[in-house]
Amino acid sequence: MASTLSSKERAMMDAYWRAANYLSVGQIYLYDNPLLKQSLTKDHIKPRLLGHWGTTPGLNFIYVHLNRVIKKHDLDVIYITGPGHGGPGLVANAYLEGTYSEVYPNISPDEEGMKRLFTQFSFPGGIPSHVAPETPGSIHEGGELGYALSHAYGAAFDNPNLIVACVVGDGEAETGPLATSWHSNKFLNPATDGVVLPILHLNGYKIANPCILARISHDELDHLFRGYGYTPYFVEGDEPEKMHELMAATMDKVVGEIQRIKSAALKDGFEERPLWPMIVLRTPKGWTCPKEIDGKRTEDYWRSHQVPMGEMHRNAAHVRLLEEWMRSYRPSELFDDSGQLLPELADLAPRGARRMSANPHTNGGLILRELRLPNFRDYAVDVTAPGVETAESTRVMGRFLRDVMKLNMEARNFRLFSPDENNSNRWQDVLEVTNRAWAANTFPWDDHLAPDGRIMEMLSEHQCQGWLEGYLLTGRHGFFSCYEAFIHIIDSMFNQHAKWLKVCNHIPWRRPIGSLNYLLSSHVWRQDHNGFSHQDPGFIDHVINKKAEVIRVYLPPDANCLLSVTDHCLRSRNYVNVVVAGKQPAPQWLTMDEAVKHCEAGLGIWEWASNDHGGEPDVVMACCGDVPTLETLAAVDLLRRYAPDLKVRVINVVNLMKLQPSSEHPHGLTDHDFDVLFTTDKPIIFAFHGYPWLIHRLTYRRTSHNNVHVRGYKEEGTTTTPFDMCVLNELDRFHLVSDVIDRVPKLGSRAAYAKQAIRDKLIDHRTFIARCGDDMPEITGWRWGQEASSAVVHSTEADNV
Amino acid sequence: MASTLSSKERAMMDAYWRAANYLSVGQIYLYDNPLLKQSLTKDHIKPRLLGHWGTTPGLNFIYVHLNRVIKKHDLDVIYITGPGHGGPGLVANAYLEGTYSEVYPNISPDEEGMKRLFTQFSFPGGIPSHVAPETPGSIHEGGELGYALSHAYGAAFDNPNLIVACVVGDGEAETGPLATSWHSNKFLNPATDGVVLPILHLNGYKIANPCILARISHDELDHLFRGYGYTPYFVEGDEPEKMHELMAATMDKVVGEIQRIKSAALKDGFEERPLWPMIVLRTPKGWTCPKEIDGKRTEDYWRSHQVPMGEMHRNAAHVRLLEEWMRSYRPSELFDDSGQLLPELADLAPRGARRMSANPHTNGGLILRELRLPNFRDYAVDVTAPGVETAESTRVMGRFLRDVMKLNMEARNFRLFSPDENNSNRWQDVLEVTNRAWAANTFPWDDHLAPDGRIMEMLSEHQCQGWLEGYLLTGRHGFFSCYEAFIHIIDSMFNQHAKWLKVCNHIPWRRPIGSLNYLLSSHVWRQDHNGFSHQDPGFIDHVINKKAEVIRVYLPPDANCLLSVTDHCLRSRNYVNVVVAGKQPAPQWLTMDEAVKHCEAGLGIWEWASNDHGGEPDVVMACCGDVPTLETLAAVDLLRRYAPDLKVRVINVVNLMKLQPSSEHPHGLTDHDFDVLFTTDKPIIFAFHGYPWLIHRLTYRRTSHNNVHVRGYKEEGTTTTPFDMCVLNELDRFHLVSDVIDRVPKLGSRAAYAKQAIRDKLIDHRTFIARCGDDMPEITGWRWGQEASSAVVHSTEADNV
Repeated sequence: MASTLSSKERAMMDAYWRAANYLSVGQIYLYDNPLLKQSLTKDHIKPRLLGHWGTTPGLNFIYVHLNRVIKKHDLDVIYITGPGHGGPGLVANAYLEGTYSEVYPNISPDEEGMKRLFTQFSFPGGIPSHVAPETPGSIHEGGELGYALSHAYGAAFDNPNLIVACVVGDGEAETGPLATSWHSNKFLNPATDGVVLPILHLNGYKIANPCILARISHDELDHLFRGYGYTPYFVEGDEPEKMHELMAATMDKVVGEIQRIKSAALKDGFEERPLWPMIVLRTPKGWTCPKEIDGKRTEDYWRSHQVPMGEMHRNAAHVRLLEEWMRSYRPSELFDDSGQLLPELADLAPRGARRMSANPHTNGGLILRELRLPNFRDYAVDVTAPGVETAESTRVMGRFLRDVMKLNMEARNFRLFSPDENNSNRWQDVLEVTNRAWAANTFPWDDHLAPDGRIMEMLSEHQCQGWLEGYLLTGRHGFFSCYEAFIHIIDSMFNQHAKWLKVCNHIPWRRPIGSLNYLLSSHVWRQDHNGFSHQDPGFIDHVINKKAEVIRVYLPPDANCLLSVTDHCLRSRNYVNVVVAGKQPAPQWLTMDEAVKHCEAGLGIWEWASNDHGGEPDVVMACCGDVPTLETLAAVDLLRRYAPDLKVRVINVVNLMKLQPSSEHPHGLTDHDFDVLFTTDKPIIFAFHGYPWLIHRLTYRRTSHNNVHVRGYKEEGTTTTPFDMCVLNELDRFHLVSDVIDRVPKLGSRAAYAKQAIRDKLIDHRTFIARCGDDMPEITGWRWGQEASSAVVHSTEADNV
Repeated sequence: MASTLSSKERAMMDAYWRAANYLSVGQIYLYDNPLLKQSLTKDHIKPRLLGHWGTTPGLNFIYVHLNRVIKKHDLDVIYITGPGHGGPGLVANAYLEGTYSEVYPNISPDEEGMKRLFTQFSFPGGIPSHVAPETPGSIHEGGELGYALSHAYGAAFDNPNLIVACVVGDGEAETGPLATSWHSNKFLNPATDGVVLPILHLNGYKIANPCILARISHDELDHLFRGYGYTPYFVEGDEPEKMHELMAATMDKVVGEIQRIKSAALKDGFEERPLWPMIVLRTPKGWTCPKEIDGKRTEDYWRSHQVPMGEMHRNAAHVRLLEEWMRSYRPSELFDDSGQLLPELADLAPRGARRMSANPHTNGGLILRELRLPNFRDYAVDVTAPGVETAESTRVMGRFLRDVMKLNMEARNFRLFSPDENNSNRWQDVLEVTNRAWAANTFPWDDHLAPDGRIMEMLSEHQCQGWLEGYLLTGRHGFFSCYEAFIHIIDSMFNQHAKWLKVCNHIPWRRPIGSLNYLLSSHVWRQDHNGFSHQDPGFIDHVINKKAEVIRVYLPPDANCLLSVTDHCLRSRNYVNVVVAGKQPAPQWLTMDEAVKHCEAGLGIWEWASNDHGGEPDVVMACCGDVPTLETLAAVDLLRRYAPDLKVRVINVVNLMKLQPSSEHPHGLTDHDFDVLFTTDKPIIFAFHGYPWLIHRLTYRRTSHNNVHVRGYKEEGTTTTPFDMCVLNELDRFHLVSDVIDRVPKLGSRAAYAKQAIRDKLIDHRTFIARCGDDMPEITGWRWGQEASSAVVHSTEADNV
């Protein structure tokens, strides 16, 4: 067989690989003497050794082979490193390509720079051990395993000329999210999307165990990837020379295959889902490190996972072994005396933006194009008076999103993501202008499925989140719609993204990207079909543990507020925006103008619902979330009847973070403003969408905190009526009125009468519930002072998913 | 081909299936007229229709076919319903088998009982729509999708005679956790474990979309399951008669195959991982419901997912259609006039404990066998004085667990679970008495892998959690060890289990099961190798949103406390116990006797570290977690030097929930006790392991809350030294001292001096960090009053993973 590489070429590539490996080992171990000009002593070695070697040589091997095909075919490729702990390798390659020194001039391409490169790694004041935001060319930290392929596909969507090379570690391959992400190929359009080239790196071991996929038969492995819809190519071995030849030949085959698929799709459009190639690369873990250390198997074993040997300051034999290991890469054949990579080696790397470490797709803010946004005011619900009209808030939002989709159809930079809940959460109008992405088989009766659809629906919150992150990180825009309870499935993914954004905020060359936007609907109060297992409003609690500078939480009380918030989220950058809103028919409160003002303020007094008329109230009724707002207003209505001279101030909160002190969150109210609104001495009855203690957590520093009494979800629920859900959790109007009565001394003797009336109402409710399971008719209509309103509060039929 | 079923048998099985389907539709729709003795009117129909039909007929079909082979071979089978929204089907079958009426006598096997059965479903005061704890025979709610197979394997471990039939919905099959859980077969020992029979139910559609696995080629599907290591058997069609025959024949083949594998393994022991059979069942979604409703495709389409038609009170045609549909099951051929199932049909079901709805494995508490526990005091670290000895707490715990493992080896009812972190979290001593479970390929140099190993390690937190839940729910015991940051991966699974336990606490026939025990180690303060992405102490915040009655959180400050807590967790029932403890060498504080007392109290004054001598302190220094405890004690030591007459009271908290009011948590301190300990007017400097606001959330009702100043993790971190991590988050001794100085007026003019000294220390630290990245030597040793201690606080080499 004719060889793919000339022996010169192979030797050069091997040298480049050795250079990357040398720099990787150097980062893990060395504090000084970077070129080994002197004999190595313990003083050249860092006091603490932190980092991971095992995966690194494989990552470097893939890198040099990708470089070859990038140059050969002028390809546009980015590199996603599933095993992100292989940070030294990616940093080494960015340094070899010159990008690192361009971005961090202090880490210059010379001996001094190399010393700094080594010292800074995994070092206080230096850089993290992982492929972090600090690493040029990365959109993926890979600290938490599982999301490499989802990120890769997210990056590939709508980037028809991009190839996303994605290394999947064999440890990562065991995670759930990764195991399902292979199916992303059913959502990729070869004509209009880019390509993902998965490279499963079987190096056999995790921290302390073998990997499953490394311990099944070749046949099973082959079956598995064919089953996932790929054509697997195997590159297996441990002799560098043979492996270079095999990898190069395979890369040529794979690139040829990709080009064949792409050009057919460009010529004929989408005909059927192609079988995309993928590579299974089997190499020894810790490849090229000492085979044994202290008589214990190290290369090709789990012992090479992190730092293959320690105790460098106490064990002279280890120092000698390290020197031997590093010299085995023959640094003098790689770098000149000044520490510069030899020109003929430097020449192997692509140039400019073709360098994977400098590809602009990996710094998405650079190429981000603003969304064209219609005027959200045009979608307003016409509100003639508070509580008269009814609308499904998220359906109204869907109309706005439909036109956002339409206006950016040509730019192809906006997608919606949902785990099969797009329609359930009432965004179905978007289907008027696009379809659901679908490249798998179809039937004639299928509903809005197409290979170029822009609504991404797979029953995997992990996939939705991972795709969206990949899409945003490469400079595009999107929104994720999810059932509120199940967004917890991606708690840890959210963590990683929020941390990524926090770090990026402090890296000047990282440009701001589109915010990660969540709509959480089908929320805790309206899980009519599914009950207790579907009730959990705790994502907010989780989210606000992260840095205030990247976190925003909105609970719009009606459709017009939701429109205003949605517009704001789509314009914002580098945030995580969490929007919680209902999908069921619900009364509307604010005109568009009022809504805009209210959302801009983030919270405020609803004068029309209050009767303190600018004076001091007897009680503050605060509410946050659509159902709590309804119950609060209904409670106020009851109070008007039972205690018409009681001065009630109603405050609605849209922007939850307004409650925090301004010292804690950039949106936080000053203490002065908080005191003016909430008073410093009046009881505050706070009806909250989520777990009640969250409000305490946000307000514990406020003067009036001891006056705050919060109602919210306290883990009581089942499949029951929406109103009964409120009663079970004591968030309903009757309990709220009762809370007021208990706390306002001036009610005097009328309190007893009012309490009895309330108690009767609750007994009526329970009787009614026990009898036929629908809400009491008398609680579905109520009045504002003298003005009649006829809000139909609860739907009575199961016509909603 | 000879048929498997006689025509009589087939007809009977079809009738049984129709009975289950009839009862399922009845539950979704009917309020009255259960036997359709009268012509159906809207008054017989519930006012609100809530539930899911689509998956139900398939579940019923599988049920009757499992019944046949259970009876034929006297098999011990349980049924796990991945698509748990198919509740009506499982309830119907439990009712047909008589179990339902045994457990709920009110739901009697007669017309009146059937009416109640129908009415209660998804009805206020009735039962949930899902296969919930209320459903006899279930260990799996299936509300949140993804965990069916993990639960199934968990149930099968160490139950050699059990077959766990596990229906995987094709929607669920898209989730990450489910996609990796197929690999559980690499951890199952055919000789000593039971069998999982996965039945992938391809009914083609989710809520509003087709399913991926229903839209790939037969070949790909076949490849996929062979790749996962199974032999797939396909049962596909929509004609009941043919399908009964096909399913029966397949069941016989599959049971034969299982018996062959089992008997070979029993005879020869484990030789190699067998290719277990699995079934792909392709039937129409909503099978047997109207093909079209209002001219729209319904059967075999997503429209049958929930309630196939609504508006029953406004649309007479729908009422007629419903009647027609229900009569198509020919109820008069199934039930006698009194509503009793005809005896020849009832005879198709297994008897007694062989009924899947009455199998004792599904009510694990019934068959739970207590663990034999060694005396944890025997593993005590010898503490001669506080802060003198050093130990790795979790390694000490590992020794105790090793002997728990040994003592229960014969009972085979204890396993440990970890995502490849068993050794990293320092439980390696357990490997002295057992191995890691491993049924995939091995090499001679492998380390403690064996098919009958009892340490379950797969790099999937989802799998660890799912397996352990399945193991506990079937009456066994276990512990899950996880990196603290990545336990968030199973936040939503934890939610579901906590909800399950909460509901079980109120179901008399559900017996208490072993608690779900977590050890969270490699915690936020010691992510030396991995940095920011691995730092998140927020699982506690997440956990305590759930019902106090099932939640326990412990942060033992040293090894002896950890031993006491571990023993307690293993003895407890129906809780979720979260234990956070470090794995790094750390100073030890309490003797075993002191530790037992301290853990029993849950929190308390450490007299030896305090100098208020029973009087009023000037300041309370509270701490919770091992690193905060160390920093607090070091701060106290500094205070002794700078302000020897300052009266300091040190309180350590082991049991976090002690901080909550007794009205909120059963462990909570009374306000009186809290006030006595923490004072009502002195500053409280609280050093906390997690996010600081959690302490405010727990204590906001306490008298002294306004005096509480909390330090904790505030999302600052990278790969740096452990002490620098504390400094970055201002939890270190110097900041704590500074906090005291700021809050204690009596320090007077000395405060300025002390502050300067502290500032100098911090400047030293920063200089030191910038220079070489190790901790300052002077902060690694400190003194207790006159007694020298020499705690080596931080390891200086990377000899720990």
